Formats: sequence, C-alpha cells, structure tokens
Amino acid sequence: VDRFEPNLRIPGPTALPPTVRTAGARQMINHRGPEFAAMLARILEGMKPFFGTTSDVAMITTAGSGGLEAAIVNTLSPGDRVLGVSIGAFGDRFAKIAKIYGAEVTKLDAEWGYAADADEIRERLRSLPGTKAVLLTHNETSTGVMNPIAELAAAIRAETPDALILVDSVSGLGAVPFDMDGWGVDVVVTGSQKAWMAAPGLAMIAASPRAWAAMERATMPRFYLDLREHRDAAAGGETPFTPAIAVAFQVDEGLRIMQAEGAANIFARHEACAAATRAGLAALGFELFADERHYSRTVTAATVPDGFDWKAFNGEAKGRGLVLAGGQGKLTGKIFRLGHLGSVTLEEILGAISTLEVVSLQGGRAVEPGAAVAAAQRAALAAYGIAALAVAGTGA
Amino acid sequence: VDRFEPNLRIPGPTALPPTVRTAGARQMINHRGPEFAAMLARILEGMKPFFGTTSDVAMITTAGSGGLEAAIVNTLSPGDRVLGVSIGAFGDRFAKIAKIYGAEVTKLDAEWGYAADADEIRERLRSLPGTKAVLLTHNETSTGVMNPIAELAAAIRAETPDALILVDSVSGLGAVPFDMDGWGVDVVVTGSQKAWMAAPGLAMIAASPRAWAAMERATMPRFYLDLREHRDAAAGGETPFTPAIAVAFQVDEGLRIMQAEGAANIFARHEACAAATRAGLAALGFELFADERHYSRTVTAATVPDGFDWKAFNGEAKGRGLVLAGGQGKLTGKIFRLGHLGSVTLEEILGAISTLEVVSLQGGRAVEPGAAVAAAQRAALAAYGIAALAVAGTGA
Repeated sequence: VDRFEPNLRIPGPTALPPTVRTAGARQMINHRGPEFAAMLARILEGMKPFFGTTSDVAMITTAGSGGLEAAIVNTLSPGDRVLGVSIGAFGDRFAKIAKIYGAEVTKLDAEWGYAADADEIRERLRSLPGTKAVLLTHNETSTGVMNPIAELAAAIRAETPDALILVDSVSGLGAVPFDMDGWGVDVVVTGSQKAWMAAPGLAMIAASPRAWAAMERATMPRFYLDLREHRDAAAGGETPFTPAIAVAFQVDEGLRIMQAEGAANIFARHEACAAATRAGLAALGFELFADERHYSRTVTAATVPDGFDWKAFNGEAKGRGLVLAGGQGKLTGKIFRLGHLGSVTLEEILGAISTLEVVSLQGGRAVEPGAAVAAAQRAALAAYGIAALAVAGTGA
Repeated sequence: VDRFEPNLRIPGPTALPPTVRTAGARQMINHRGPEFAAMLARILEGMKPFFGTTSDVAMITTAGSGGLEAAIVNTLSPGDRVLGVSIGAFGDRFAKIAKIYGAEVTKLDAEWGYAADADEIRERLRSLPGTKAVLLTHNETSTGVMNPIAELAAAIRAETPDALILVDSVSGLGAVPFDMDGWGVDVVVTGSQKAWMAAPGLAMIAASPRAWAAMERATMPRFYLDLREHRDAAAGGETPFTPAIAVAFQVDEGLRIMQAEGAANIFARHEACAAATRAGLAALGFELFADERHYSRTVTAATVPDGFDWKAFNGEAKGRGLVLAGGQGKLTGKIFRLGHLGSVTLEEILGAISTLEVVSLQGGRAVEPGAAVAAAQRAALAAYGIAALAVAGTGA
C-alpha cells in the first residue's frame, strides 16, 4: 500500500473520482433484472448528447480497440474500398483492422504530429471511386493531435456522399464538443477509461441511421461484436452477453458527475487544463510535439530533447508520484505524454508542472523556480477568459 | 439503497467477497507499469493449476462469449470441418460462432438435460474424416448439466487424434477439478464472473502447445481476440489493449482467496453445495431437470411443474431477497435455476432452500416446514463424508 495516491497523468485510464471508485465496489446484481435495465438505459441515453446524436448507442464489454473492430466488422464487407486516414499509432491500428478483415484499404498518412488535411483527403478520394468508408481518428493519443472532424467530415461528404465516416474518438469524446449528427459522422467509438472517469472495460459506440442500415448488408464475420444484437438486447434492457457490470456501475456514476458539472463546463475545464499543460511544458523548455493548430485537449506530447535522459527524468518524477506516459511505437524514447482528461483538475496539472520544475532543477536544467507554474496558471486563466491579475507587490 | 444484500443465486455473476469488492474500488494504475505486470503474471500463473496446464494462459477483456469466439477464430480456418457437440444454449452458441466464421460445422445435439455421449461422438466423427476441431461444453449453464470432459476427450483423441478439442468451461473451471494437459484438451475458456468470484469483464483462455501452433496456420480473421498478441504482450508484462484493470484487481484478490482455501476444499464445497441444492429442491417437490448421472456442480436446474405459477413464486422469493434465474431460450418458463459457484457458502444454500420452503408454504404447497432444509443439510454432510448425527430428543 502506498503512502500517497499518485498523480496519474497518463492518457487513460484516468483517475477515478471517489464515488466512482465506490461504485466499483458494489455487490453484483442480476444483469437480466430491472436494476441493470434501468442503468443501461441511463448510460446509453446519457451518452447521446456527448456523441451529439439521437441515434442508438451500444455498450460492449471490450477495450476501445474492440470498439474500433466493431465499427469495421459491422458496417463493411471483404473487398470494400476503405480509406484509412492515419495521423499516428491508433490511425494505423484502425486501418490494420479493416485490412485484416479483408477490406481493400488505402492508407493516407499524415506526418506524425500533424492533423489530417481535408484537401488531401478529398484529392485521395477522387482517385478512389466507390470508397465505402473513411476511417478517422478524432484524438490521436499517440501524438497529442486532435483532428478537425467537422471539417474532415464535410470534405468527405462533399466528395463521396455515400462513404461511411467511422471515427475513433476513444480518447476524445466526452472531453470536447462532438456533433455526430450535425457533422454527418456515421460511427463513433469511445471507451469507459477516458473522459468517462471509469475503469477500462466498456466501449460505447454510436451509429447513424445509415450505419445501422449498412449493418444489414455488411458481410464481415461477427458474433461477439455484432452491434445489432447489442441494440436489440438493449431495447429489452439487456446486453446479449454478460456485461462488465462493475465498470457499468462506474460509468453510470461518472455520467452522473458529468451531468452535474455540465458539458460546457467539462469542455472548458479540458481546454484550460490542456492550455496550462502546454504553457507549463513549454516554459520548462520542452518543445511540444503536435502542430500548434491541432493540439489535443486531452493529451499533450512533448519532444524529448537531444541528449536528454528521459528515463532518469521520468524515474525521478515517478518517485515523486507523478505518472507520465512515454512514447508509443516509433515515438518510443522520442516524446513523452501528459494526459489531461476525465476527472482532471487544474490543480493536478499545476501540481504536475511544479513537480516537473523540481525534477528539472534537481537535474540541473536551467529552470526558474515557479516560472513554469506561473505560465501554466496564466494560460489556464486565459483559456477561461479571465485576465491574469496584476502581480501583487510590484508597487502598483 | 437496499436494506439487505440479496442472496444472489444466479449462475453468474456470482456474489463478490468483501475484499474482492474493495479491490474493485481501487484507484486506477498505469497498465504499462510494473504493478500491473506483477498482477498479470500472478493471475496467469495462478490460474494454471485450475486449468490443469503448464501451457500459456491469456487474459482478454470480454465476456465469456468473447472467449469462445477467441477459441474459434484463433485456431480454425474457413472451410474447416468442425463437430459442434451441444447439450444446451451455450453449446449451440459455440457452434454458431464457428459457423459465422465460415467453418463447416456439423452439430451433434444431446437432448437438453443430458450430457454428451462418448460413443455417439466417436460414431459421428467416423463419418467426418479430417475433422479439425470438436467443440465441447464443460458445464452447460442453461440446463445444469456437466459433461464428463475426460471421457469425451479420450474418445475424441482415440477417434481423431489430430482434431483440436475446444472446451467452454466458462461456468465450470475453478469450481471443479480440470486436467487440461492430462485429458488432452486443447483450448479451455473461463470467465471472471463465475468461479473466480470477480465481476464480469475478463475471459481467461488456456491453449495447449498444439493449439498455439495451430494459431500460426489458422486464417479466420482476428485482431482484438488474437491470442498470440496477448501471449506476446503478457511476456512483457502487458496486455495488447487496455485491460479491464478493476476486474483484474478483483480476479487477483479472488485467486488469493482461492489459493488460501485450496483447490481440494473449493471443489468439496461446490460438491456439498450442489448436493444440498439438489436434495433441498427435490424435497420441495421439484423435479430436477438434469440427468442424475451428470448433474452440474455449479448450477442446478429444476423443472417448473405443470400449472405452477413460477412468476408469482419467483416474485415472492425475490421480495425475500433470493434471486434465482429462469430458463434460457427454449427452456424459458419451463425450468428455473439456482447457481452455487464461486464464493457460495453452505449457509447461503440452506438459506435459499429455507426461503423456498417459506414461499412454498405461503403459496399453499404441501410442504413440511424444515424438511427440505433437513434434506439439504444431510446431503451436504454426506457430500463431505460426514455421517448425519442421530436426531436429538428422540429418546435414544
């Protein structure tokens, strides 16, 4: 047992609020009874405003990647032409799944650190007539980039009106605005351990009416991930297979907390925490990895400077209770990441930045005590639209 | 909030012991860190003796049915000849999955309530040369029948030595002896919410060396359920996708409790609880559904008598805190089921039987107060090898 609770600043799982933790300790119930039915309905209905849809949502017991697989296998058939727009490791994964199930996948790769470009997508689609689906990542956890889904979806709709738009928003949805119906997006996938403040184990998937219709024609094999079974069972207050009940208890409580805070406040909090993180890391002398036009509001990636001993730095931070994430895949050792989603508070971000200041000072880096924290505070206040106060004691 | 905790006597999810509940309330940790790695290793190693194997076990974030799908798609290819031996709803499901993924499935159906017959399997296999796999259900939750896997596996091995034997032991493993290596079984699937006393959300799958080898040749499409990815990641202390961490905390604690009790005691407890349940229900005038040669030791099914108002009876029991399960599929309304697996105690079973006595008396059934409880007590003592005491006060 640890002396203190670490500041868990990885991009998911996110730290659980106290009542969410308690919800995870509840005794089991019959998942074929009225109590579960009421909870399932609350979760599926409660998520709809965050998806920005009035269409049906399904809840499946898998990690987010299982949700991505569900998006593919439910809507597509082997041989279908698919454009996999990738801006990082999770975009690569999404395209890989489509390929494994026999889709004819064309990849469109952005340089890691950059968002996808609407014009490039349109151009590529022009050379791919009959494209059945375009795969997009909303928030690319591996690079700290957030794609402008509204803009990309509009371009896709204009070029290939019939192509389904499948979006991985595992680490984005719930933390930032999303308007699935308004943007014309067809399938959106999210995961319980991200903005929803719960443990991992559940993926939630919304599908547009035309995506639900596509499921009747799609021939990729599926059983456990068959969303029609989930939708039909949900209509009767059940899931087709025994669900991760304890995680559902937590998602239910997380949603209650989120509804009490309100979507606008949640989004503003994420905006402020992201701005504070960026300003703090920059003031500490780290170069941000992502293109500044498309910073993620749920995870920030910083470049590991040449010759910088990231392992020692990270070990020191960890010893002080700050848990960061390293780079993934080809970015291993090249970037580190700080997550700010779900239950995150500004104090947790300021705490993290102040710990990184201490660790930097310890390591002999040229850092002015308090300067990075001050930069983070100012950025957060600016994000909230509050003018920074005049500095006290300057004789004004 | 309820006044009391119900006696959850469905065949899974099973009631969580206090420390397992507490484990579900733990704060999240980094699933790519040393604490998770140590826990994953404890779980995978700790399960091996219950599987009866020294081969690798994988842990995936799905319901048991996701585990069944993993057993199929990892070891087989479209067009493969498969014999699906079914003794109930879950046997049907196993065969259905194989069919969906393109296997050439022959069904061998036992009458529901009966176990599979080794001679029938051998005979059927004789007419199906080149059979690549035989699907078996260890404990058929829908009928309360437990198949004699050792005997069935021996018959299959004798007739078609090269066929893989895939076993659904979602609701059996951990509660009764299993000797995967000794019996020559190739893949065994279990689920966290059954004997393991944890919440649902994790399936554990063991594969024999020849099953692991088959995975290299199998061509059914798979990504999320690819067991090779899970095995390779586990070697590095990780899972390929974010795991249901809170459920893993619970399985870890459940295993600790099970190891403290010891396998022999666990099996004897299940034997005694099953015997008590059968004797109690029989003394209450219910006919047991399963063939007496193959009663399940984790769930007992009783036939709903002609003209008996099961709904009213069940509602009354529920009002008194006893949660039973009805029939599934074609047995809806025809049987009811009482689960006795995982953390189950003899007192919970005696409590359930005594509540059913009260409900029976209330309903005007011809039942002698205390008689069913006495029958259950005697059966449990006999199962434990303890001679029932002479009745006190009879003037001896």
